[in-house]
Amino acid sequence: MHTIFVMIKCELGQTYKAAALIADQVDEAAEVYSTSGGYDLLAKFHLDKAQDIGRFVTERVQTLPGIKDTYTITTFSAF
Amino acid sequence: MHTIFVMIKCELGQTYKAAALIADQVDEAAEVYSTSGGYDLLAKFHLDKAQDIGRFVTERVQTLPGIKDTYTITTFSAF
Amino acid sequence: MHTIFVMIKCELGQTYKAAALIADQVDEAAEVYSTSGGYDLLAKFHLDKAQDIGRFVTERVQTLPGIKDTYTITTFSAF
Amino acid sequence: MHTIFVMIKCELGQTYKAAALIADQVDEAAEVYSTSGGYDLLAKFHLDKAQDIGRFVTERVQTLPGIKDTYTITTFSAF
Amino acid sequence: MHTIFVMIKCELGQTYKAAALIADQVDEAAEVYSTSGGYDLLAKFHLDKAQDIGRFVTERVQTLPGIKDTYTITTFSAF
Amino acid sequence: MHTIFVMIKCELGQTYKAAALIADQVDEAAEVYSTSGGYDLLAKFHLDKAQDIGRFVTERVQTLPGIKDTYTITTFSAF
Amino acid sequence: MHTIFVMIKCELGQTYKAAALIADQVDEAAEVYSTSGGYDLLAKFHLDKAQDIGRFVTERVQTLPGIKDTYTITTFSAF
Amino acid sequence: MHTIFVMIKCELGQTYKAAALIADQVDEAAEVYSTSGGYDLLAKFHLDKAQDIGRFVTERVQTLPGIKDTYTITTFSAF
Amino acid sequence: MHTIFVMIKCELGQTYKAAALIADQVDEAAEVYSTSGGYDLLAKFHLDKAQDIGRFVTERVQTLPGIKDTYTITTFSAF
Amino acid sequence: MHTIFVMIKCELGQTYKAAALIADQVDEAAEVYSTSGGYDLLAKFHLDKAQDIGRFVTERVQTLPGIKDTYTITTFSAF
Repeated sequence: MHTIFVMIKCELGQTYKAAALIADQVDEAAEVYSTSGGYDLLAKFHLDKAQDIGRFVTERVQTLPGIKDTYTITTFSAF
Repeated sequence: MHTIFVMIKCELGQTYKAAALIADQVDEAAEVYSTSGGYDLLAKFHLDKAQDIGRFVTERVQTLPGIKDTYTITTFSAF
Repeated sequence: MHTIFVMIKCELGQTYKAAALIADQVDEAAEVYSTSGGYDLLAKFHLDKAQDIGRFVTERVQTLPGIKDTYTITTFSAF
Repeated sequence: MHTIFVMIKCELGQTYKAAALIADQVDEAAEVYSTSGGYDLLAKFHLDKAQDIGRFVTERVQTLPGIKDTYTITTFSAF
Repeated sequence: MHTIFVMIKCELGQTYKAAALIADQVDEAAEVYSTSGGYDLLAKFHLDKAQDIGRFVTERVQTLPGIKDTYTITTFSAF
Repeated sequence: MHTIFVMIKCELGQTYKAAALIADQVDEAAEVYSTSGGYDLLAKFHLDKAQDIGRFVTERVQTLPGIKDTYTITTFSAF
Repeated sequence: MHTIFVMIKCELGQTYKAAALIADQVDEAAEVYSTSGGYDLLAKFHLDKAQDIGRFVTERVQTLPGIKDTYTITTFSAF
Repeated sequence: MHTIFVMIKCELGQTYKAAALIADQVDEAAEVYSTSGGYDLLAKFHLDKAQDIGRFVTERVQTLPGIKDTYTITTFSAF
Repeated sequence: MHTIFVMIKCELGQTYKAAALIADQVDEAAEVYSTSGGYDLLAKFHLDKAQDIGRFVTERVQTLPGIKDTYTITTFSAF
Repeated sequence: MHTIFVMIKCELGQTYKAAALIADQVDEAAEVYSTSGGYDLLAKFHLDKAQDIGRFVTERVQTLPGIKDTYTITTFSAF
């Protein structure tokens, strides 16, 4: 399993709808939080080793309504 | 009670209308200031412990007319 | 008297028209310069102690045609 | 009265000592918060109209032990 | 419970020692990852409602050897 | 005459000493202000057409005690 | 041969179509990767010594559908 | 003579047309280069001492088709 | 195999020594380039699926003499 | 011939000594200017096609006394 984090900026007022869509429709979503700072959401996804992270983020996350920008953080080791 | 600060960037010329809307229509607003720098307003809100800060900012503040961007600062301890 | 500086970014090609408008129509304008760097203009304004700096910048400067963004610097002490 | 906000970055591990010093030794301190984000503290000060904000920040705040950097926001109008 | 994320920049070559210290000595640590990008670690902590997040980050995390800078993200809602 | 502006960042607590040095020892100084934001001072200098602006800033301003960084803005036209 | 890298930001959801276009239609493309971070793609191109890098990037890469911004890195020496 | 440099960001795919326009229609253009990095062009202009640099950049360069943003660097001394 | 890119900032004048060290002593190094821009080197590494990318970068790359800062880009898919 | 530009940040007060060193001791230097903005110098170098740009910048420019940081811009086409 790969664990990745995606910081997400949403259209004004659309953050909670976008978060609900991620939680409901994206099976790989492990945790979705609304957050402080300049991004609106921080989402954690568990992907199969065989899954393409880039395709997942750009085609399954970026295409949800209300999402404006994403920044992807990959993780290497869990302590 | 949670105290949070939100720095707000407004549409050109809409800052004081947006500030008045926050002061008049948002009960949680404790203080709203126009400020120097690149943001136009700095607002302080007192939320109940039970309130969801993210929902409050994205659905009650970001949706007011004239607001273009927000940056949320949460506080942890008051001295 | 309060002295403030406002760095101004203009629409492409509109800088000198915007500068002339500030110089002609804004009585508080003490100096307006076109400048090097990423901003197009640097304007110095003298406001009465009783004037609201935020209202002045957002309603009298930001609303002039050709202005795209402003950054306000307040001064505290003159040597 | 002038209300100003100062965002403060502290030496590693020194934030709460610095916050206590501000709260205890700086009479103008109205509120001091530890915060989320890249800065460690957000302090609100009430200064007399006659006080020099720049001298206050650079000589009374910046000189406290544990403080590494400051960013000053002045307020113009309270709603 | 409060869930927070802290992005951590470490001294050159000290990242895995710092990560091990967090995992071993900080009971509140739920997950610690080494990551891509400009920060070296992303740590997730679960704090009691009664715990002070700012004191926790600045006195229990920032003071571990090998840590150079931190950026704190608080979460509001989990979907 | 050339009019230039220099934004100046000072060592912690040294801003007013540096400002006084500029005002007292630099004949070309027309105005020196302490300011809001991330820089501590904004200085305006009038130089003779024959003077070298770069030499002036780097050898007469940057070398004063207490100054840590400078950012030079040249002006082209005064309205 | 010149080796250059181009970091590419794509329209939301268009990253893999853009990557396929680069791989299929741009003969100079040696490697195209989807990546972590704020850019979506990192492409490596081998150009003839006689080719104009700027014309290549701005007329053959920037004009492909789905591409929003590019940042070009040239290489000097390979170890 | 004044020598200035202007870094220019162009609309996608328009860089070489914009460069040709500068070279052909702007007499003051001494050199125009396509470049690496985030800007597309770097242009060097020689202006008469009597020419207004700001008016030149904003009315003769920014108004050419295909140009999106400019950043002006003035020079003080040539070694 | 995992392909990663690391952008590397070196101590002044140490770039080519650092590049030679990477090429000579780091078996996973596939390509090392000196580059334009603010970073000095761009290195491509091929790691085994079983290797920990974070440990590799922070313990095998960051610890080489002459290296000051690193920024890691992971790749997901090669076209 | 390759034409490159290097933006140079110098130690406080050392800009003109560094510029003189470049002009006197670096044969490839075609033009060196002191400049406005956050960098102190902009230097243009003409290198032989056979010269390694990276080695030139990091070993012949970065190693001159008084230089603190460099940013290299390569050019592709001259109009």
